[in-house]
Amino acid sequence: MEELVYLDHAATSWPKPLEVGSAMMDALQNSGANAGRGNHSLAIGAGRVLVRARSKLAELFSVSNAQNIAFTHNTTMGLNMAIKGTLQPGDHVITTMTEHNSVRRPLEFLRQTLGISIDYVKVDRDGQVDLLELQRTFKPNTKMVICNHSSNLFGSILPIGEIGDIAKSNGAVFLVDAAQSAGSLTIDVKKMNIDLLAFPGHKGLLGPQGTGGLYIAPELDLIPLMHGGTGSQSENSEQPNVRPDRYEAGTQNGVGIAGLLAGVTKVMSLGPENIHLQEWELTQKLMEGLSVIPGMKLLGPGIGSERSGIVSFVIEGEDSADIAHRLDRKHNIAVRAGMHCTPLAHKAASTLKSGAVRASVGVTSTDEDVHRMLIAMTEMYGQKK
Amino acid sequence: MEELVYLDHAATSWPKPLEVGSAMMDALQNSGANAGRGNHSLAIGAGRVLVRARSKLAELFSVSNAQNIAFTHNTTMGLNMAIKGTLQPGDHVITTMTEHNSVRRPLEFLRQTLGISIDYVKVDRDGQVDLLELQRTFKPNTKMVICNHSSNLFGSILPIGEIGDIAKSNGAVFLVDAAQSAGSLTIDVKKMNIDLLAFPGHKGLLGPQGTGGLYIAPELDLIPLMHGGTGSQSENSEQPNVRPDRYEAGTQNGVGIAGLLAGVTKVMSLGPENIHLQEWELTQKLMEGLSVIPGMKLLGPGIGSERSGIVSFVIEGEDSADIAHRLDRKHNIAVRAGMHCTPLAHKAASTLKSGAVRASVGVTSTDEDVHRMLIAMTEMYGQKK
Repeated sequence: MEELVYLDHAATSWPKPLEVGSAMMDALQNSGANAGRGNHSLAIGAGRVLVRARSKLAELFSVSNAQNIAFTHNTTMGLNMAIKGTLQPGDHVITTMTEHNSVRRPLEFLRQTLGISIDYVKVDRDGQVDLLELQRTFKPNTKMVICNHSSNLFGSILPIGEIGDIAKSNGAVFLVDAAQSAGSLTIDVKKMNIDLLAFPGHKGLLGPQGTGGLYIAPELDLIPLMHGGTGSQSENSEQPNVRPDRYEAGTQNGVGIAGLLAGVTKVMSLGPENIHLQEWELTQKLMEGLSVIPGMKLLGPGIGSERSGIVSFVIEGEDSADIAHRLDRKHNIAVRAGMHCTPLAHKAASTLKSGAVRASVGVTSTDEDVHRMLIAMTEMYGQKK
Repeated sequence: MEELVYLDHAATSWPKPLEVGSAMMDALQNSGANAGRGNHSLAIGAGRVLVRARSKLAELFSVSNAQNIAFTHNTTMGLNMAIKGTLQPGDHVITTMTEHNSVRRPLEFLRQTLGISIDYVKVDRDGQVDLLELQRTFKPNTKMVICNHSSNLFGSILPIGEIGDIAKSNGAVFLVDAAQSAGSLTIDVKKMNIDLLAFPGHKGLLGPQGTGGLYIAPELDLIPLMHGGTGSQSENSEQPNVRPDRYEAGTQNGVGIAGLLAGVTKVMSLGPENIHLQEWELTQKLMEGLSVIPGMKLLGPGIGSERSGIVSFVIEGEDSADIAHRLDRKHNIAVRAGMHCTPLAHKAASTLKSGAVRASVGVTSTDEDVHRMLIAMTEMYGQKK
């Protein structure tokens, strides 16, 4: 069979840069002790990796004090920390229909248990929010605005700078889910008035799974999601106030974070804006090629518009899971089909029943990958006359 | 300088077996996709690693259905899931003075926020609980008994089988913290009446950091600590009821879990009872050798008694941090000094002010390691006349 074409970068980037694996092996072998839990050389080496990774991430997101970034298991954990650490009974939240279940499910849980209220601002068929509509949704008790930077179904890029301005002028805490943007879209927490930024380590930042982080603005005091040992103020029965310890209970994923550091270093040497441009060009070729297939409906922004590396589509009369299955088995092409954990976005796209096929490119994707995908698709589903 | 002697296995085991690094690299390169988030071959490969690791852990702990084990970031996360997912306002909890801050801090947080009440059962100077005292502490509203299998300060082994019986006969949920025992002491969740078992991946199970797990008895329904995407029932705004998805929101640490699988496989091929015996023999040599030092006070069970691989001590008139520092700098020996995140245990040992030095052996420790430690210690602190 032909070599694998991997078009599932929105789930996790693959393959990782060689430096990521090397850094992980180096950490496992040479600084594999428990960071912050001892003063011997091996533990100090492990601690140093965390410090360097934190600084690099701070640089990437224009965070002035790296201690305000806490490492997490994944983006979901960062979002849970942010949402459950902020909201109190009676609070109102504004979010959008493009959000992932990692935002929707914590919110719906708090609606049931704390009685918060939630508005999901509509998105249009391109996966874009109407800022006037969002503006009108504020209430006196609006505590928080939550928005993904880029939709994991539509590939649309939401105007988080503008939304940050609106949140700020209404006195709301602004949480951004950067699952589909960290590493390929510019994020500046200061300029964009971002109070909380949850990001994955294993997608656009090219690190391994089991890594991610949450930026927490210095003026916010989240109730920690996890309480436990921090290696600091051990005699204190409360979680210490010092950052990042307050939000990093228990042993951190030192080996994974060494890989993340290598990934972020790679991203910064390439430049997120260059990565974005390369991905955008590939999506344009992909969309143009797909648009000749009979019954093809491309989701999200049209050809020529801004978007992330995600191209989702449905074909009239064809089952999405079946398309993905045939691409995998017959052509060794990896895409993803289904709900993509974002049912409200499917509702907006009118694809709740069919689901959608999502092809997503990343930093290692090539013209040849797109070409192979298009050959396979037209072979299976034909071309318009 | 001489080769490193690593005696900090209670913080994390090191070095890891070579198979652990190889398995991680293999997973990163060949099954590095996102488990449960796609049906292409790469994602299926990633899912298979999780299935195999879960089965292996189930075998180790005599868990009949592997789906009742959820992977976690670390032991602390498992303990937080267990504690915060179980306790309700007005509940009473029985635990011990040997517990780690990863138990004490979540409990004290719930005391403040939910008004739970807590009894910390006293331990004697050997770090052992009095079962009659524990039995007497039950109240009509006792919901939960929490106990570590082995103290991370004393090295004492708590009779979790008996405590499980007592908990069961009093209708309480029994949570065991296996941070210092998983991999070297036999754990049978059925025979020991364990309802919840939190364990690390990176200590006695020889896996990498960023891994761990929580066994949840099938009849318990914990409120999830994290809500989010599971790749299942995506249209459902609530966390799905199906296990392990309910307790594994977001992307799992597939690469780390591949390493954990290799670690657990190694442990099971060696046999936990053999590992324990080897560690016990080393602790005996260590204790005998240390006992000749003037002013030496060994904590925990005496020579000849059962204990885990941990030997903690203080030397009258010497600063514990200074001892550890000198061992590191002058002799390249890694031990840990301080509070070890367990202030109440220090209170029981009357070492709250001094802290203690903790030397801990693991599966790779040798007679030579112990010999080097004893040479260094007698060189620095002399021998009794």
